[in-house]
Amino acid sequence: MSKDPFRGVLVPALTPFRSDLSPDADAFVTHCRWLLDRGADGLAVFGTTSEANSIGLDERLELLEHLIECGISPNMLMPGTGTSALTDTVRLTTHAVEKGCAGVLMLPPFYYKAVDDDGLFASYSEVIQRVGSDSLRVYLYHIPPVSKVPLSLELIGRLLKEYEGTVVGLKDSSGDWHNTEAVLKAYPSLATFCGSEVFLLNTLRAGGAGSITATANVNIVPIRRVYERWQEKDAGELQKKITAVRKAFEGYATIPAMKAIIAQYYDSPQWCTVRPPLQALHPSDTQILRDSLTQLGFEM
Amino acid sequence: MSKDPFRGVLVPALTPFRSDLSPDADAFVTHCRWLLDRGADGLAVFGTTSEANSIGLDERLELLEHLIECGISPNMLMPGTGTSALTDTVRLTTHAVEKGCAGVLMLPPFYYKAVDDDGLFASYSEVIQRVGSDSLRVYLYHIPPVSKVPLSLELIGRLLKEYEGTVVGLKDSSGDWHNTEAVLKAYPSLATFCGSEVFLLNTLRAGGAGSITATANVNIVPIRRVYERWQEKDAGELQKKITAVRKAFEGYATIPAMKAIIAQYYDSPQWCTVRPPLQALHPSDTQILRDSLTQLGFEM
Repeated sequence: MSKDPFRGVLVPALTPFRSDLSPDADAFVTHCRWLLDRGADGLAVFGTTSEANSIGLDERLELLEHLIECGISPNMLMPGTGTSALTDTVRLTTHAVEKGCAGVLMLPPFYYKAVDDDGLFASYSEVIQRVGSDSLRVYLYHIPPVSKVPLSLELIGRLLKEYEGTVVGLKDSSGDWHNTEAVLKAYPSLATFCGSEVFLLNTLRAGGAGSITATANVNIVPIRRVYERWQEKDAGELQKKITAVRKAFEGYATIPAMKAIIAQYYDSPQWCTVRPPLQALHPSDTQILRDSLTQLGFEM
Repeated sequence: MSKDPFRGVLVPALTPFRSDLSPDADAFVTHCRWLLDRGADGLAVFGTTSEANSIGLDERLELLEHLIECGISPNMLMPGTGTSALTDTVRLTTHAVEKGCAGVLMLPPFYYKAVDDDGLFASYSEVIQRVGSDSLRVYLYHIPPVSKVPLSLELIGRLLKEYEGTVVGLKDSSGDWHNTEAVLKAYPSLATFCGSEVFLLNTLRAGGAGSITATANVNIVPIRRVYERWQEKDAGELQKKITAVRKAFEGYATIPAMKAIIAQYYDSPQWCTVRPPLQALHPSDTQILRDSLTQLGFEM
């Protein structure tokens, strides 16, 4: 794994499924290549946006191997490896390290709720110690709206102190700028990413590393422009534009909405497919979304 | 799988771990036998109480096989098979059917929150259709305090109608008697189990099938007595006693608390071990719990 933490605009790449719900590994490679060609600074494959937790353990292992075999550099990969089960998390994380991935994005175990910091510290500790590799780089994944298992500021600090050089970053998908700001202030050495590009400019101004954001699957170039020009005069205007696109998607179930738009772009209706419990966007909603995106001057 | 749904007092058997956190398959068999010897009407292994979602996929498959190889009848088994991932749920469920288990207790996919009934219906449908066995018997698992993914009354009705003879029961661990009552009233043909023995007498009086309850791991005989004598004059008194024991455990993290008491009973300190994110009960808490149980006349 590389020594320098990720920076910039990373994409939690969507996972395409065939109509029988099996992962379409080749369409996945195509989409990942497209994102990298357009400037993605890394691919946080197997994130929430990727429907990773709807995908089986073996399927995840195979998909990651396929990506790398097809020439996607593991230096650009930060796969999600956190599951509810200790041993499955160890298995996915060890595999990612063995394949040379530059980092992993690690959810806390997310089945039990209201667990305390000691339990979450022990969870991360066990995984890190069992993987037992100097090459491991962990990015903590704070996404309480979905996981319902928040990572407190104190827990982040404990992990950063105990596993300096291994715990190197964090994705904050709380949707709460005050939390991101507090993390950035408390732990300036941590590579902190906002989980929505709505906060990208704020994050960069506060010393953050960038964003790992769902909507980068469809809007990578304008988002990267904010990252490149955040110290320029037009940064605020550029931020406004990407915020507007994000908000348009947030009016719908975001994952099905992005897949519907990508299906049009690739002219591949199969791209609309999501795994249950998610549901594909209704065609009439796709049309309304498409119209509002057109009004915003959006194009993929 | 047997044609008649389960009835009575089922136990979500605790899973013992060695000090290195690996499952202790033999201690597991011993505990399961002990429960059956004391009158358990079935074992809902790999439930929430069993820390199943902290246990890896392969470990679950192996543990189930070991139980059956050691002579625990699959007719008495209702393993939990619901995971967040469609294909993993199919794998665990197919395996349980192939091993002859009399039923499975199925969580909805529990990663994404605020999913709608159509998505949950599609999830259960996909699993049932992929398993594709006349022998499959599904018990729905409603445990919103932990899963954060409730099963609505409407959804239960849709599944019951579409998969009559396959979807045969439900465990209600909402902790909300009004919900259990509503399910019992709406779907009298469903084998409905309360998830806490606090509601056992109420459940039986309303036509329910019994209870699948954590504390049965330590208090099976008195709980079964309520089940046997629910139409007798002393039923209310018997219910009061088991409620008091339940409440004593609920003052602590219930899983570590039960493991601590079982560790004393088996004289096996290793039984205190839980997998993170859970944490073992502090010895001083164990003593306080032990004292309050003694005052209640509790014995295993």
